[in-house]
Amino acid sequence: MIYFDNSSTTPVNEEVLDEMLPYFSENYGNPGSMHQKGLDALKAVYNARKKIAKLICVEPEEIIFTGSGTESANLAILGFARKKGKGHIIISSIEHPAVKESAMHLVKEGFDVSVVNVDEEGFVKLDELKNLIREDTILVSIIYANNEIGVVQDVNKISKICKEKGVIFHTDACQASQYLNLNIGADLITLNGSKINGPKGIGVLVNKGVELEPIIYGGGQEEGLRSGTENVPLIVGFAKAFEIARENLEKKVEHVKKLSSRLKEGLLEISNTQLNGSWEKRLPNNVNISFIGVEGESMILMLNEEGIFVSTGSACSSKSLEPSHVLTSLGLKPEVSHSSIRFTLNSFNTSEEVEIVIKKVKEIVNKLRKISAIGD
Amino acid sequence: MIYFDNSSTTPVNEEVLDEMLPYFSENYGNPGSMHQKGLDALKAVYNARKKIAKLICVEPEEIIFTGSGTESANLAILGFARKKGKGHIIISSIEHPAVKESAMHLVKEGFDVSVVNVDEEGFVKLDELKNLIREDTILVSIIYANNEIGVVQDVNKISKICKEKGVIFHTDACQASQYLNLNIGADLITLNGSKINGPKGIGVLVNKGVELEPIIYGGGQEEGLRSGTENVPLIVGFAKAFEIARENLEKKVEHVKKLSSRLKEGLLEISNTQLNGSWEKRLPNNVNISFIGVEGESMILMLNEEGIFVSTGSACSSKSLEPSHVLTSLGLKPEVSHSSIRFTLNSFNTSEEVEIVIKKVKEIVNKLRKISAIGD
Repeated sequence: MIYFDNSSTTPVNEEVLDEMLPYFSENYGNPGSMHQKGLDALKAVYNARKKIAKLICVEPEEIIFTGSGTESANLAILGFARKKGKGHIIISSIEHPAVKESAMHLVKEGFDVSVVNVDEEGFVKLDELKNLIREDTILVSIIYANNEIGVVQDVNKISKICKEKGVIFHTDACQASQYLNLNIGADLITLNGSKINGPKGIGVLVNKGVELEPIIYGGGQEEGLRSGTENVPLIVGFAKAFEIARENLEKKVEHVKKLSSRLKEGLLEISNTQLNGSWEKRLPNNVNISFIGVEGESMILMLNEEGIFVSTGSACSSKSLEPSHVLTSLGLKPEVSHSSIRFTLNSFNTSEEVEIVIKKVKEIVNKLRKISAIGD
Repeated sequence: MIYFDNSSTTPVNEEVLDEMLPYFSENYGNPGSMHQKGLDALKAVYNARKKIAKLICVEPEEIIFTGSGTESANLAILGFARKKGKGHIIISSIEHPAVKESAMHLVKEGFDVSVVNVDEEGFVKLDELKNLIREDTILVSIIYANNEIGVVQDVNKISKICKEKGVIFHTDACQASQYLNLNIGADLITLNGSKINGPKGIGVLVNKGVELEPIIYGGGQEEGLRSGTENVPLIVGFAKAFEIARENLEKKVEHVKKLSSRLKEGLLEISNTQLNGSWEKRLPNNVNISFIGVEGESMILMLNEEGIFVSTGSACSSKSLEPSHVLTSLGLKPEVSHSSIRFTLNSFNTSEEVEIVIKKVKEIVNKLRKISAIGD
């Protein structure tokens, strides 16, 4: 079994699970309770918050726990827009659906939304962004590292542009959080447990003092911004996973980059292939390649038969027949887009796995191209 | 250690945890992925959905997984109201903050909200409810079993009233789900994992065909109603916990009712005490008693010293200095309300624990009343 689909989701690290376990059946208190069981839970949440805050150089009170990366992005975008009441919002053309769909929903609530394009390498056009910012622009939301092509935006430059114009900047850092520097200029940062070998169902919104309207109302947890009993085991798990992710980070990046470089080279030896997105500014674990003339879905299914797990586009849209909006944004024709495969590695992966994948992909592409030639 | 605070939260049953465990680090796939890891996760979610649906006689597609009971209630109330666009909503005066605060927020969005009162036993005044329903009433939300006093409403009668008037009925059944019949007439039912010896951070909204606007947008999971990667381990855990909760239900109810009856009798032997809420139609595990002249919080802290964990009101509001809105609704004076303690049992609890609690409460009430007498 070779799992090269780590941008869809990651296994929970065993150390993380061990840290979470006592909070299910032993230290199961509700942090809102006044007795010792409650206080123990409250302390665990507090320590997790402090740990995460320290790792990204923010204050503990700037960490809001939510139920997912998607919820964090929604809280940032819907929460800020609704608090302002009206205005203009800018997102990029390669956002994750969590940002894209929440921004698009705001159109129905009377907000104006503009989309800033990316160049053929996947970089947001900064001049276009500057020109799009208007008097009434309130928010810019741009993904730090894209979930399909791994291209990394210059979030500090974007943050500077926004600051100069007095506009709030949110970045979806779900994919970035495993490998990139998070001590960045954004006002709002979305993080996600399931992408960092932590549990699913836990997200963080880093909020550097932005006033938000909640999207979920109730008992007033998380300073009133996210009601509902704190999910103690998953909060503890997020903190541990994030801590582990940040340990020996340079070494991990080096290892993963070496693997993905070899994977890219090996796969590009196949004729009629192309790498999608910039190679220079990219997540170290992402390889996205189009195998022209081959249906991506057929390839996934055949790789699956060999015990190799990869994806087309994001998991969220992988079952949709629409071509990926990210690849279309790079200017790819639908047939090139439909032939793309995303390989996303993890620091557990090995050179041996990479060689097997290269070999198997070569065989499968050959086979599929032959079938398709007969079909013609 | 005696935990009599099961309406705040419950420990995860060991069997439930065992069922969840493989889904963290082994079967960790994203149900949206096309490969085997994804399909295995999808199947687990499907089976959980089917299991829950069967237990409450609804269709699997009527089960929506959310991140908490609070989120489920918000999705029902905000989601239905926003879909309709305008109208009048009725809630009871003893709702959990998840319902109360989401309904109150809707006032800011242009909706009208009325509150139906309860009598001194805690029952919603059905004649008042009928009179409150107007031409433009779209939704009634009434808690099935109250979280503070455990009083059980006649949800089938309420459902009938709503149906006759063409009004949608939502009931918050978080506390009811451990012990009561859930094959009820409501159109929308909120359930919560953390109240049934399942995990925190997982809720269900049972939706019998009501059109809702999502509160979280993104990848379109849960039929577009709740975006974000499905929380596979917690979904599996909810289903298992719910299954166990429903096994030998009569026997469990009998056991818990026997314990709580003895607890009530023992505590009411103390002078100047009163039971809050109806005893006849009540959750079998709830005892809520006012110890007049004693500060509830002081008592919680002193019981805590003895390793006995109870609460005042709900965990959500237990740290607030405001008197409980539930007890105030019953007509209790603030000083009586402030002297109330909620004891909520579980089927693991024993007669021995009940006797210890009765003994310790008697001692502590005596002590606190003496101190307070000296103070006077």
